[in-house]
Amino acid sequence: MDAIDVIVTKRDGGELSGEQIAWVVDAYTHGNVAEEQMSALAMAILLNGMNRREISAWTEAMIESGSRMDWSALDRMTTDKHSTGGVGDKITLPLAPLVAACGAAVPQLSGRGLGHTGGTLDKLESIPGWRASLSAAEMLDVLRATGAVVCAAGAGLAPADRKLYALRDVTGTVESIPLIASSIMSKKIAEGTSALVLDVKTGSGAFMKTVERARELAATMVDIGRDHGVRTVALLTAMDRPLGRAVGNAVEVTESVEVLAGGGPADVVELTVALAREMLAAADLPGTKDPADALRDGSAMDVWRKMISAQGGDPSAALPVARESHVLTAPATGVLSTLDAYGVGLAAWRLGAGRARKEDPVSFGAGIICHAKPGDHVTAGTPLLTLYADDPARFDRALEALTPAIKIGGAPDLLPLIIDRLR
Amino acid sequence: MDAIDVIVTKRDGGELSGEQIAWVVDAYTHGNVAEEQMSALAMAILLNGMNRREISAWTEAMIESGSRMDWSALDRMTTDKHSTGGVGDKITLPLAPLVAACGAAVPQLSGRGLGHTGGTLDKLESIPGWRASLSAAEMLDVLRATGAVVCAAGAGLAPADRKLYALRDVTGTVESIPLIASSIMSKKIAEGTSALVLDVKTGSGAFMKTVERARELAATMVDIGRDHGVRTVALLTAMDRPLGRAVGNAVEVTESVEVLAGGGPADVVELTVALAREMLAAADLPGTKDPADALRDGSAMDVWRKMISAQGGDPSAALPVARESHVLTAPATGVLSTLDAYGVGLAAWRLGAGRARKEDPVSFGAGIICHAKPGDHVTAGTPLLTLYADDPARFDRALEALTPAIKIGGAPDLLPLIIDRLR
Repeated sequence: MDAIDVIVTKRDGGELSGEQIAWVVDAYTHGNVAEEQMSALAMAILLNGMNRREISAWTEAMIESGSRMDWSALDRMTTDKHSTGGVGDKITLPLAPLVAACGAAVPQLSGRGLGHTGGTLDKLESIPGWRASLSAAEMLDVLRATGAVVCAAGAGLAPADRKLYALRDVTGTVESIPLIASSIMSKKIAEGTSALVLDVKTGSGAFMKTVERARELAATMVDIGRDHGVRTVALLTAMDRPLGRAVGNAVEVTESVEVLAGGGPADVVELTVALAREMLAAADLPGTKDPADALRDGSAMDVWRKMISAQGGDPSAALPVARESHVLTAPATGVLSTLDAYGVGLAAWRLGAGRARKEDPVSFGAGIICHAKPGDHVTAGTPLLTLYADDPARFDRALEALTPAIKIGGAPDLLPLIIDRLR
Repeated sequence: MDAIDVIVTKRDGGELSGEQIAWVVDAYTHGNVAEEQMSALAMAILLNGMNRREISAWTEAMIESGSRMDWSALDRMTTDKHSTGGVGDKITLPLAPLVAACGAAVPQLSGRGLGHTGGTLDKLESIPGWRASLSAAEMLDVLRATGAVVCAAGAGLAPADRKLYALRDVTGTVESIPLIASSIMSKKIAEGTSALVLDVKTGSGAFMKTVERARELAATMVDIGRDHGVRTVALLTAMDRPLGRAVGNAVEVTESVEVLAGGGPADVVELTVALAREMLAAADLPGTKDPADALRDGSAMDVWRKMISAQGGDPSAALPVARESHVLTAPATGVLSTLDAYGVGLAAWRLGAGRARKEDPVSFGAGIICHAKPGDHVTAGTPLLTLYADDPARFDRALEALTPAIKIGGAPDLLPLIIDRLR
């Protein structure tokens, strides 16, 4: 096998064989295919595509580059969710304990935020004492004790994906659906879940800006799941406006706890329950307790508290609050027609809730609370958003991002919260 | 400026600005754009193309990465030729002294062979004592004294091209007409010639297998020359069969000397004279001596002897002869309908005339003499080709390449020697 042959095959629009894919991913992982060769191949894949057979083989090769987790020792079915990321997307926080409360096991390996979208681990780390890094044995212990675990992926899981993602990030080759889909699915399949629900977001605050691209990504991931024996369903959901009212880290934990207490914003509750039902159905547990009941009766909250405690966190502790706040009032009276997700995400990032580079810290207290949602009537001069930051110098640039993100007057033209379902 | 922005612009089918091109080529040359970023960009260029403005800017940036030679101290017009390479293509050897004998100065920076096509410097180095490396001052001395110099390009000439070519070679990004054209033209323009004739070959033994691709490459290079004030003409010429009868190093020098002595194979003479006339016309010297006369009257041979001597070579010395030879006889009686250039080139390479890696030595005596050319009548059992090699173990693999390259019977379907002219 020769790297140039593999590159030239894809460059010229050909189909890569299973042997070529297995070889090139393995050789790249071990440093026998150079970074500059893999980036040329990634660009050829981005521009010329891969078919279903190639994408499944590519995913398989990335899984094979590392270890695969095994939950057969559990007496419960495993089921998980993956979101492609958005603004205010704290859904994993109420969802994992909720699904566990309904009888399934949720072994979720999660990530940190980069850019304008937040990361589940960053949010959970705002809880004093909570730690993201667990060994496989610790994960199994937490799962057995509570039914749900959310932690960081270890270095042994799909190392090819880790290396390839870092390369794509600096070579303009991130935006390839075959490469995005195989990256996500290689980690989720290696994680060992038997059922998987994908929350593929679309809109300004999502990675996929159009419904068509989101649908293509969702369909590609569902195919990969199916090809690897994981029962996979995808929901296409709205990310044209923020999800819920809180955007940040600690503020999103607070909102999640409200949902677990039976309250919280309607959209967060609706999406959490819908995803929980999909996760239970995919795990063949549809006859157990309904998720809406588990939010009302406190059983999901019980799992949440146990799950946080099991990872060293204090579920009763006060959460970090930013040192400074700034209230943005409504500039006019009328219907809030637009509260653009990307603008709000960018503002929260600039306030310190997100990071620009992987090694940067995040501010747990920074973020935004939205006092109105699109469609609400607002009155000029009354609070629209409250901004939180440790450093007041950050408000100006956050406000710059928010100004064009807010429009008052006219009916809002919003995506339905749940746009479609693919399986 | 940011490398990812440049890559994404081209990836998405956009046009690179002059600033983007100047920046990315300069930053790459200085190591501030990584190899893996440049290879992704090269693949995007290969697949999405560049327009004339971008190609000229890219060429300019590669020229600007190094020094530019200056022949204004000469009292003659400079004119040069570049061939895209072929099998038996020794044309530079008789051509450079011939054009000098007709009144122009020929400052040719040439290269070594790689793969199945030979290199002018390898051929000349088979002359005892001749050396390829000259300083700029030595080049000027030889040019002043003889009117022609053929030598290796120094490291200061278009270093961006040198670095980029090595990268393209291992990343499947060689076959891009904008990148091939700018690579060739950056070196020729930096070489400082005022007029340039391109010999763009097409056919099995050429880099461009089809007339359409050759025409596209030729037109692209003519445009670049024009955009940089170099009077540029291109001939599209045949490389479906070997040029002349000799393929190798010393054997090609011998054939070149035959041409300079007024003899030699008709196709080599025809192409040499046609290119010489083009070089003189491009240099605005059409009224001087006709090249056909300069071959007949010995004046081109006089320049050749001076030129070889001026670079340390002995034009009267015996040339290296391979230790072993093998005669391949005609397998049937009839018209030789095919003598495929690629097969003959591959065989000569396997005999030792070419190199597989840049650092390999070549065998000066190895090569092939063709006793018949396509269209000739041959008789079964009489010599068709003589193969030369230092190691007789090499004959078998050379013969394997030759067997499918020879067909007897039926009228040959050959390209015209000179297919077209572009300016």
